[in-house]
Amino acid sequence: MKAIVLLSGGLDSAVILARVCAEAKSCTAISFDYGQRHRIELEYAKKIADYYQVPHEIIPIDPLIFQGASSLTSNMVPQKDKSFEEILLQKTPSTYVPARNTLFLAFALVKAEIYQAQEIYFGANAMDYGSYPDCRPLYFEALQELFNQATKQSIDYQPPRVIIPWLHSTKEQIIQEGIRLGVPFEYTSSCYDPTLSGHPCQCCDACTLRNKAFKSFTESKQERLAES
Amino acid sequence: MKAIVLLSGGLDSAVILARVCAEAKSCTAISFDYGQRHRIELEYAKKIADYYQVPHEIIPIDPLIFQGASSLTSNMVPQKDKSFEEILLQKTPSTYVPARNTLFLAFALVKAEIYQAQEIYFGANAMDYGSYPDCRPLYFEALQELFNQATKQSIDYQPPRVIIPWLHSTKEQIIQEGIRLGVPFEYTSSCYDPTLSGHPCQCCDACTLRNKAFKSFTESKQERLAES
Repeated sequence: MKAIVLLSGGLDSAVILARVCAEAKSCTAISFDYGQRHRIELEYAKKIADYYQVPHEIIPIDPLIFQGASSLTSNMVPQKDKSFEEILLQKTPSTYVPARNTLFLAFALVKAEIYQAQEIYFGANAMDYGSYPDCRPLYFEALQELFNQATKQSIDYQPPRVIIPWLHSTKEQIIQEGIRLGVPFEYTSSCYDPTLSGHPCQCCDACTLRNKAFKSFTESKQERLAES
Repeated sequence: MKAIVLLSGGLDSAVILARVCAEAKSCTAISFDYGQRHRIELEYAKKIADYYQVPHEIIPIDPLIFQGASSLTSNMVPQKDKSFEEILLQKTPSTYVPARNTLFLAFALVKAEIYQAQEIYFGANAMDYGSYPDCRPLYFEALQELFNQATKQSIDYQPPRVIIPWLHSTKEQIIQEGIRLGVPFEYTSSCYDPTLSGHPCQCCDACTLRNKAFKSFTESKQERLAES
């Protein structure tokens, strides 16, 4: 079994890579350099791919494509200091990048056909639904339907399966799985707006969700320990 | 009404551009520089876009993405001198580029959302069906379903409509429409393997289809004149 794993440098896709490797699947990790403000995530993607000894390709996308179209690709700083509830309930935040996931997944389809990979892994999770149109179950269903029709591989052999392992998982559950698999979380970066020296800002949506999930995980672990 | 027109430099998309302009729609033409052997088509795309005074963007795609994956993107020369019937009946020729149209159309979706365009035009025609999986009606139906779900624009306003005007047209019919609209065909290039000086080889699939269509068109015109 051969797989393409979209590896952002964040923790969701790192845990996917760990699981795919644990299942002894052959895989190639791909990341995208698209002019994102948190371009440092690519260094983390490389660290994780190296850690798992997986071939890693960084696909360049002309930064002009998305320039100015999102707070991830412009000088406009993403809004900070939202509460956990505000983040979950917000509708399409400024960090939405127009049709970005469709473009990323189209590149993954190209790679799947060239490498004859049967699986494409993508790290959207249950906390992304409400905010990002291209993270919803309906979106991925339609994407699979397209991929079933799109390539010579699809028609003559078998379409690549788009697998979204965390589609119904919270970040806390993903961390739990990562800990079970021994993922080196220090090799992941989630922040949308890191400092010049590369440190997480601790108050963008991505930092808030990550910190909250680690905190909840630690608390529930302590509770379980106290109970036993 | 605003439109994105995928402009290859060939005649099918040139006639689409002419029609969109004749309908007085505001549009942006996009072309792709992906390391194709017939890269000269981009100069023709520029000529046609200039002729119709339409903004034209050439989107660069890292040539490594497709390198070696098709006779359009490798040193392997496309097979030549096939008969018209052989071309129509062949199954996925060497000129197929893995998932290329899906990637192109994903870029078009990005542009449609950024420019708030309601229509995306693509020049596949009835002669492409048999050979290219990503030119079939079923493929475009699935693509539209995906686009209906893919973006903020799709969900909050209206999904962009993917329009394939020549889906059921032969090349001869497209030429007929081009002549009606006064398209300067000398500003188009179809050849897959032009000479170093940019002249068409006259014997690749694209040249054969183009030449045959112009010949049929001229002959049937002469017949009509003789009859009248």
